[in-house]
Amino acid sequence: MIKIAISSLSKAAFTPYGDVIETDGAQRIPINQGFAERFNDLATIDVNSAGGTANVSVIAANPRPLPIVIKLMERHPLGSQLFFPLQDKPWMVLVCSDPKNASSYRAFAANGRQGVNYGRGVWHHPLLVFDSDSRFMVVDRQGPGNNLEELWLEEGQWHCISP
Amino acid sequence: MIKIAISSLSKAAFTPYGDVIETDGAQRIPINQGFAERFNDLATIDVNSAGGTANVSVIAANPRPLPIVIKLMERHPLGSQLFFPLQDKPWMVLVCSDPKNASSYRAFAANGRQGVNYGRGVWHHPLLVFDSDSRFMVVDRQGPGNNLEELWLEEGQWHCISP
Repeated sequence: MIKIAISSLSKAAFTPYGDVIETDGAQRIPINQGFAERFNDLATIDVNSAGGTANVSVIAANPRPLPIVIKLMERHPLGSQLFFPLQDKPWMVLVCSDPKNASSYRAFAANGRQGVNYGRGVWHHPLLVFDSDSRFMVVDRQGPGNNLEELWLEEGQWHCISP
Repeated sequence: MIKIAISSLSKAAFTPYGDVIETDGAQRIPINQGFAERFNDLATIDVNSAGGTANVSVIAANPRPLPIVIKLMERHPLGSQLFFPLQDKPWMVLVCSDPKNASSYRAFAANGRQGVNYGRGVWHHPLLVFDSDSRFMVVDRQGPGNNLEELWLEEGQWHCISP
């Protein structure tokens, strides 16, 4: 099994895959009579294709056994999908341009104040977390059509990540 | 000044004003090969009127001096506005049906795992928090048109809340 290297998550490195949602480095707009600051427009929400609408959910995830063996990837052909961690817990993001091309995988360590918004059709792994009951706010698409494509790898194509 | 009573936030009590976003009592959908649960479709996102699109932001709020004096209310005539607390910190929600009618005000104590989605045109107060740098994920509308209406109360109409 090929072991996938892990990099720190950054806007620049993640550009081909979607948005990094973070306040570090973002413009601060004073609002609410000076009692708050807004970090505005942090993601491109792309959910209205083919009659879709925005769907706000909470997902609570649990860790997988270490080392993590990567057996499948998924993508959403009809819309973007945003994850933002609640409770400031670090997590991990795994994407690729072609699930069958080992060299196209990229793993990113996200800090607990970084979310991502996968672009439409971007291959990614289901949530990878380190703590039980790791909660995320999710903004994705609901509506007509099949918006989930899963690709299960054959055993010889499995990868592994060990944080 | 009239002192506004505070109730616990619940879906039933908040129905006239919008959605309460919470996992307690919501349906749990197993996903991600059993490693996660999804609490799906927790809010009605109403942002596409008049060419609008969804805007995802983070807002960091600070406490106001106690007792809190209510001098203004605001509403968004073109779209809904969702706030979900990060870091599990309790906060407070203040809404009314008519800012000039004292008896129409309702204050709600939200726990740190409860968000709200104000319906389009619902009068509400800017964020009321108890801790500095209280962060929220926000989903509201961006696009053409004036989507902010503020109403400043005359001094004789001010209210107060003391948590």
